Amino acid sequence: MKTNAVIDLMLSHRSVRKYTGEMPPDDSIEAVVRAGQQAPFAAQLGSVLLRKGGEKIPFGAPLLFTILVDAHRLELVMAARNWRMKTNDLSLLIFGIQDACYMAQNMVVAGESLGLGSCFLGAAPYRAEEIASEYDLPERVFPVVQLTMGYPDEDFPPRPRYPLPFALYEGRYPEFTEEEIARAMSVMDEGYLTQGYYRALSHMVKLEGGREETFTFDDYSWTEHMGRKWGQWFESPEKLIDQFRKRGFRLTEGEEPAAG
Amino acid sequence: MKTNAVIDLMLSHRSVRKYTGEMPPDDSIEAVVRAGQQAPFAAQLGSVLLRKGGEKIPFGAPLLFTILVDAHRLELVMAARNWRMKTNDLSLLIFGIQDACYMAQNMVVAGESLGLGSCFLGAAPYRAEEIASEYDLPERVFPVVQLTMGYPDEDFPPRPRYPLPFALYEGRYPEFTEEEIARAMSVMDEGYLTQGYYRALSHMVKLEGGREETFTFDDYSWTEHMGRKWGQWFESPEKLIDQFRKRGFRLTEGEEPAAG
Repeated sequence: MKTNAVIDLMLSHRSVRKYTGEMPPDDSIEAVVRAGQQAPFAAQLGSVLLRKGGEKIPFGAPLLFTILVDAHRLELVMAARNWRMKTNDLSLLIFGIQDACYMAQNMVVAGESLGLGSCFLGAAPYRAEEIASEYDLPERVFPVVQLTMGYPDEDFPPRPRYPLPFALYEGRYPEFTEEEIARAMSVMDEGYLTQGYYRALSHMVKLEGGREETFTFDDYSWTEHMGRKWGQWFESPEKLIDQFRKRGFRLTEGEEPAAG
Repeated sequence: MKTNAVIDLMLSHRSVRKYTGEMPPDDSIEAVVRAGQQAPFAAQLGSVLLRKGGEKIPFGAPLLFTILVDAHRLELVMAARNWRMKTNDLSLLIFGIQDACYMAQNMVVAGESLGLGSCFLGAAPYRAEEIASEYDLPERVFPVVQLTMGYPDEDFPPRPRYPLPFALYEGRYPEFTEEEIARAMSVMDEGYLTQGYYRALSHMVKLEGGREETFTFDDYSWTEHMGRKWGQWFESPEKLIDQFRKRGFRLTEGEEPAAG
């Protein structure tokens, strides 16, 4: 496989959950966000809130970025040209989340090139209204994800990923054999167990419905963790639909049309 | 602003729409996808289809990647641990699109570090069924975006972006003044006009409803282009909802539950 300094940097990515107290300088923050902005876009729908310091940032990180789908800003620009948003909100969100994520991932890589570690916080969409009141968000702005950032105060190897043939399919989508699935699961599970990932976090997802725990940190690993999350959590979309609705986005035609 | 080779690479990003005929070597392709895989994830929900060569790739690019939200693969892994997907499809897609996009953006940057240009094709969600039949996609796999890649056969400066204060907000979301909006629009419009972007493409979005064209390539620029797209296209979400439905994803509770 070809490598170079950029690819090596990306292959050494880890999500950092422990930070030194040092505040990154403004010129680093600017570089991170500018690199984010230069990512490809559909309509520059991504924008960024920044909080510096304070007790409310997870993991004690000095920086917290909140990456937004910012239809409000686009609509201001459109209004200045006498256009009104006509595109449905579902399409807008599908493109907007992409814009926001390309931006966010460039911020991760740019940060790492400056010695800054980071960690995505995925709960932002479920906390949209809370975030909206924290930052005075107008309607038509939706927080996709948050990103803590700062100088790492921990060191560990990159986490494993699926074997390449379980992620890259040439020409057509494969029918996975049981052996291929087992091998991919083993790469993930053995990798996390070897690193003692869940043991260090002292964390297993609880079994619901009173089911008895049969795993220990000797065998609880990534695939069981995934099974418990996706097999138990968030059965109904209503809470998320409600967060979108409160931020002024309607996902289906049956819902009330969005405020103009 | 701080810079280094990685940030300079990201700041020099351009979407490339003209390629030499040269096929990138397999070890470059592997590096691009491995760098993509190492991006942060919620559940490794992103996977990648690859087409090499052939006439059907836009811009005559040698490579076409299709980035998928791959719930099928996760569900195979879960089944091997006796778990069934319980999480609603809307949440799954919100996380899955993020996983897919972080991966895709790393692929863009990794490619550029190897001299490979690329261009996202945003229409994939609307063409989901068509892509599904091209690549034999099982249900529960949804194409988020496609990415052409190859050695650039054109050279031009990076396209402009909004001024930083129109994209990065510290502490709270600002109330933009008319001057700030006008200045951001001017940066975009003057930037695209100076580069002759739409003139070179010989492309304006048509005015619908028989409205007469009043712009020329001397004044048609990015903000008018955005206004015409978002102000005229895709009023109904039904087509997109139908593409999700056909791929086995139900966005709301009112719809039939997804096949297990």
